[in-house]
Amino acid sequence: MKMGNATLLNVLVHGFEGKIYPINPKADTIMGLKCYPSVLDVPDEIDLAIIVIPAKYVPGVMEDCAKKGIKSVIIISAGFGEIGGEGKVLEDKVLEIARRSGIRVIGPNTMGYKSPVDNLDASFVFGMAYPGDIALASQSGALAIGMIAHANMEMIGLSRIISVGNKIDVDDAELIEYLDSDDKTKVITMYIEGIKDGRRFFEAAKKSSKPIVVIKSGRTKAGAAAAKTHTGSLSGSDVVYNSIFRQAGIHRARDATQLFDFARALANLPLPKGRNVGIVTNGGGAGILMSDFCEMKGLNIVQPSEETKVKLREILPSISVPRNPVDVIGDAGFFRYYASAKALLEDPDVDGVIVISVHGGYARPREFVGAILKLYEDMKEGAVPEKPVIVCWVGGKEYSDVVFDLKIKGIPAYPTTERAAAAMNVLVEEHERRERMRGPESS
Amino acid sequence: MKMGNATLLNVLVHGFEGKIYPINPKADTIMGLKCYPSVLDVPDEIDLAIIVIPAKYVPGVMEDCAKKGIKSVIIISAGFGEIGGEGKVLEDKVLEIARRSGIRVIGPNTMGYKSPVDNLDASFVFGMAYPGDIALASQSGALAIGMIAHANMEMIGLSRIISVGNKIDVDDAELIEYLDSDDKTKVITMYIEGIKDGRRFFEAAKKSSKPIVVIKSGRTKAGAAAAKTHTGSLSGSDVVYNSIFRQAGIHRARDATQLFDFARALANLPLPKGRNVGIVTNGGGAGILMSDFCEMKGLNIVQPSEETKVKLREILPSISVPRNPVDVIGDAGFFRYYASAKALLEDPDVDGVIVISVHGGYARPREFVGAILKLYEDMKEGAVPEKPVIVCWVGGKEYSDVVFDLKIKGIPAYPTTERAAAAMNVLVEEHERRERMRGPESS
Repeated sequence: MKMGNATLLNVLVHGFEGKIYPINPKADTIMGLKCYPSVLDVPDEIDLAIIVIPAKYVPGVMEDCAKKGIKSVIIISAGFGEIGGEGKVLEDKVLEIARRSGIRVIGPNTMGYKSPVDNLDASFVFGMAYPGDIALASQSGALAIGMIAHANMEMIGLSRIISVGNKIDVDDAELIEYLDSDDKTKVITMYIEGIKDGRRFFEAAKKSSKPIVVIKSGRTKAGAAAAKTHTGSLSGSDVVYNSIFRQAGIHRARDATQLFDFARALANLPLPKGRNVGIVTNGGGAGILMSDFCEMKGLNIVQPSEETKVKLREILPSISVPRNPVDVIGDAGFFRYYASAKALLEDPDVDGVIVISVHGGYARPREFVGAILKLYEDMKEGAVPEKPVIVCWVGGKEYSDVVFDLKIKGIPAYPTTERAAAAMNVLVEEHERRERMRGPESS
Repeated sequence: MKMGNATLLNVLVHGFEGKIYPINPKADTIMGLKCYPSVLDVPDEIDLAIIVIPAKYVPGVMEDCAKKGIKSVIIISAGFGEIGGEGKVLEDKVLEIARRSGIRVIGPNTMGYKSPVDNLDASFVFGMAYPGDIALASQSGALAIGMIAHANMEMIGLSRIISVGNKIDVDDAELIEYLDSDDKTKVITMYIEGIKDGRRFFEAAKKSSKPIVVIKSGRTKAGAAAAKTHTGSLSGSDVVYNSIFRQAGIHRARDATQLFDFARALANLPLPKGRNVGIVTNGGGAGILMSDFCEMKGLNIVQPSEETKVKLREILPSISVPRNPVDVIGDAGFFRYYASAKALLEDPDVDGVIVISVHGGYARPREFVGAILKLYEDMKEGAVPEKPVIVCWVGGKEYSDVVFDLKIKGIPAYPTTERAAAAMNVLVEEHERRERMRGPESS
């Protein structure tokens, strides 16, 4: 019962405020809690049962749950459909009980469920996220835990982490519907190896009022073969998935890093109303690279209006020509960053701004970060038009530390030009998705 | 003379062991050093002159350098070809003097030259790299400094950093030739906005015995327009550049992060003899993603030989099927990582191995890192075939810290599957380039 103990420990250490009833016919107390031989012996109603016992005993316990009137069950135990044969028979039995008695099941063969916003860690794997507004549903438990660690490092908070396991009952489509209605969640992210009911998934995603970011693995022959071994998933054609994702307005991420790159931007930034991007940079080279990546993603590097150029001429040193990218020169401090970005945000032709700081020898990282914070303060007060401002830096440890002042407030700060441009593009695509949802009449 | 002072300071603080002669007609001493009115008054021979004075005085000083017999000059001063008109006239004058008197010129309009392997910082911008074996020639001074900071953060040492400036004399082709013959340099990296003599560049790159990694910006219309403003460079067609790079065997990187990803692998790892990759992972999901990225890059996920499978069966827990990717399961410690990777390296059909660790709750980061270190120790002693082992991790701060034990030894450890697969691919392409260089007779 090592995994059972680990699960109980996780529930306990995160300070969950509800009542906890350990079930074990062979013990009187576990970790100081009174133990019950069966759920049927528990004197209260039970909202959620977490099952962590050998697979062969699961149907019996499910019958007890049914009798007790429990409506939600997480089956962590493995040894079901994923091993085939007898496991599949057990899985069908469990599903039959669930259907018959109206129990909703997550799993089996799942890492469990973690809900930082409720202080609930119903999983056998240690590792908890900060509370936040990004939900993660993952077909790989280990990857989900790795992603939690990544999110923590990036100071990205999560609302719910669901390891979907074999998905015998609750599946991806239903999770989208649930998370769309969940007031703790702003962005839905998913790691998927295979989808059982593509049509339902497509419909749920298309209807979602919230942005959805998906990593879909098993894109190639080698990947699909590996997926089949891992979760028994049929990966399906990647061309078809791409088409489904595009039509449903799902944002596809290549890996965990990009998934959180996108999710943080989508959760926290206003959406651009179009594809026109302004760039502010203290280094010409980085400005060129950013222009390249923006254009490659289909974004436009618009030239500023005459009015904006007049403003920029007042702000910039004489050696800098007022154009986009705006070159604030290597030694730019708070004022040049702040005022140039503000001028671009006030230009009606600019839909969003990317501000770059290269750690040349005369750069001023703290003033750069201060300028960004002030711009977002101004937006809150209505002093600057509400448009996304995305940050990009090229440098080392000093920059990677100072941009935490932005990250802690949800403002994305990317260490490569490509990642910043990709994030701006995802915001544009989310805007376009919402326009499509609203339909031609209302726009 | 602020920039002149900054340059002298940089030369002084890094402990350069040669003699330093400040030249300034208006001072007797600068920073405790005796000052000379002109190079002609210096009692010794001069190996290198660094010129940091207003552009209009540069031709006069160049004449002095010619008289003094100085053969190497770095002109940091701006205000030449990049501003056109009078600046271009000055630039032509400087070049005429250089040609006439056999002076080689770097610049003008350059951040300068930094040589960590000689403790020489001949630049006006603060920021020094650790000594190492990767050279960087950059058409953007600020970006070069930002890249030094990035390299420092990643514990990547550099041999020489050359800011090429206006390239009136020494150009990219010549730098390749020089760095190819430089025994302190193993890998040549470059940031390029435009190349003046494409043919010469191509020939030099093709002949280079060392790998060359290039970021070429100005790929799109927007990027090219920005490049024209930045350094006056004509970007040229990106299709043509791609073709030149491919034919010359140059590895193209998208940004600074990827440039160093590639350079560290090329500088330190043995080259794979073919495209067959073995994967060891403690998480199925990450193994699928890695298989995808490898196949998308044109690498093969080969299945292990029967002999290798027998070995793997001895190493792996019974729930893991011996196949590629090899799933060592979430709680893998030193032995499973080490022995599985060793088994793959010993398989004659495997050309290189990628080892992944996902920071699931039962992962053992330190044992994982220890296994990789041991594999490289084994290779040194001939106990394991010399093939590249590349590391990938998915996790947070704990992992990003622990993999420094690898990075400090030059072993790349990438935080995304895509970056690790791209690095393996670059090693394969470098091997293929060398095979082509060797020609069909000798292979």
